[in-house]
Amino acid sequence: MGVCVLKILKDKKIVPKYNVCVMGIRGEESCWFPYSYIGSKIALGVFEKNLLKKLIRTDTGKSLKDHINFSGFDSSSVAAKKTKFDFKNTIAFIEPHIEQGPVLEKTKIPLGIVTGIRGSIRYRKARCIGKYLHSGATPIDYRSDSVLAVSTLVAEMNDVWKQELKKNKDLTITFGEFYTDNKEHSFAKSAGLVNFCIDLRSNSKTTLNKIKNTLFKKIKKIEKETKTLFKLGEETDSEPALMNKKLINKFKSTAINSKVKYKIMASGAGHDASVFSNNNIPSLMLFIRNKHGSHNPKEYMSMKHFSTVLSVLKNSILNF
Amino acid sequence: MGVCVLKILKDKKIVPKYNVCVMGIRGEESCWFPYSYIGSKIALGVFEKNLLKKLIRTDTGKSLKDHINFSGFDSSSVAAKKTKFDFKNTIAFIEPHIEQGPVLEKTKIPLGIVTGIRGSIRYRKARCIGKYLHSGATPIDYRSDSVLAVSTLVAEMNDVWKQELKKNKDLTITFGEFYTDNKEHSFAKSAGLVNFCIDLRSNSKTTLNKIKNTLFKKIKKIEKETKTLFKLGEETDSEPALMNKKLINKFKSTAINSKVKYKIMASGAGHDASVFSNNNIPSLMLFIRNKHGSHNPKEYMSMKHFSTVLSVLKNSILNF
Repeated sequence: MGVCVLKILKDKKIVPKYNVCVMGIRGEESCWFPYSYIGSKIALGVFEKNLLKKLIRTDTGKSLKDHINFSGFDSSSVAAKKTKFDFKNTIAFIEPHIEQGPVLEKTKIPLGIVTGIRGSIRYRKARCIGKYLHSGATPIDYRSDSVLAVSTLVAEMNDVWKQELKKNKDLTITFGEFYTDNKEHSFAKSAGLVNFCIDLRSNSKTTLNKIKNTLFKKIKKIEKETKTLFKLGEETDSEPALMNKKLINKFKSTAINSKVKYKIMASGAGHDASVFSNNNIPSLMLFIRNKHGSHNPKEYMSMKHFSTVLSVLKNSILNF
Repeated sequence: MGVCVLKILKDKKIVPKYNVCVMGIRGEESCWFPYSYIGSKIALGVFEKNLLKKLIRTDTGKSLKDHINFSGFDSSSVAAKKTKFDFKNTIAFIEPHIEQGPVLEKTKIPLGIVTGIRGSIRYRKARCIGKYLHSGATPIDYRSDSVLAVSTLVAEMNDVWKQELKKNKDLTITFGEFYTDNKEHSFAKSAGLVNFCIDLRSNSKTTLNKIKNTLFKKIKKIEKETKTLFKLGEETDSEPALMNKKLINKFKSTAINSKVKYKIMASGAGHDASVFSNNNIPSLMLFIRNKHGSHNPKEYMSMKHFSTVLSVLKNSILNF
């Protein structure tokens, strides 16, 4: 969408009042390396250098440092926190993105103007250790069942989520992976091991920390009840971020003037814009209406909605 | 243990009043073929012939019929329900076995005299189908989370189990396998698929059927709550069986006369003795004290306890 704006400006020979720069940023998602916002943090010179060796790509087993060097870049300038741009005088960082929930699609609105981005607390490699015991011969009091333990945690944390929503707190709680060991598990035994992961998200750091405490308390209780042991493993966090109010209002006005329907909304997922915002650069995200959510092969944005949002973006830039 | 009895009789030149026959029976467990008691059912001529082709060994992909023939036996005589022995005049089938729970070990008693064997209802290949949806961007009301659905079922069925125990019903409920799809699952998505299995056991067929009904009701409720779909797959059952009261009393008397401590107890696991019992052959199981339960590499029976139970078995046979 950024390149389209440049093309329009060039074709129409419009010179904007400010430099317009289009960035393509790598490593926002933590698919390859278990860490978010790698590209934006490097661009801003805030990437911790010890992570260069520590972060290992899941498919190659090689470090981020190795991959940066193999790709023809210089990891030592990353370690030295050198940056290509001076962001001091940046007046806006704008990130357009397909909407990832079903809200715009269901309400038939092409544009979302984002107020804030959720932060997260994650345990990617959590385990619950119990004992493999005969399913027919082991009485309830002698059991140490990992499946029961983690299932209880999932069910109870879902109740916690509902309670927080009733109090109008922003929150999601997800256990996306849950698996017994396929070398040991069997229908005729209670399971001695469950691997799982936890993803907590909220636009409030207070809520995240409160839910983390609740999680720890629940685990202690369930360990006693089920005679099991939880090992949550390493915690990886990302910070919640607020979008810039002036930018929100500017894009709102442009949308109204362009007769484009918009929705003011939060972003459930994390995005590079949160890193720019948390480093004091006025930032904004735009959502484009999209079918079937994101992170799946069926995600679909029509070019009509793309063009609508593009016109709002272009007009906003021209009115800066 | 049967062979040891024969050896003692032979060495001491004792001729018992009745023929003593030692059987080694294959296929009691359903590890290779998804069916229990194959050997004992074939021995008794009650094995359903359509299963010969239908049962497929998990590791080879070949049928039971093929494996019987490859091993030098004749599957057509199995299909014709021909038997080697006429069991009509059998006065007792005795099955010695390590105890599979921790009861004899914890109470330091070498011998268990078994009153009955639990039957089972099993769903070995159950699935719960939901949708893979972004963990941060999908609100609670739009979710269709398989992990939450199956976890809720596990937690609620555990409560059902506790309630039945309070009513003095004999029961175990186990979910030994529970796994999301490792090609699709991720910490950043709610899970669209969980594979799991259910094992219900009881010495009462009434209890088994009642719990099966409860299970179905819970699933319907949870499907609505979580917008998911459960597919339990094929059900495989085994019948509960009572051991013969006269045999129980005979072995009790022998134990008392031999000054061997014993415990009268049920068998949580299924055993070939249940097939003999359900085919009107007076049957009994003896449990031998054993450490660490069964079905795991640490199971351990000391030869001292083996000898103690052997003496009770031999003396009982001589007193028939």
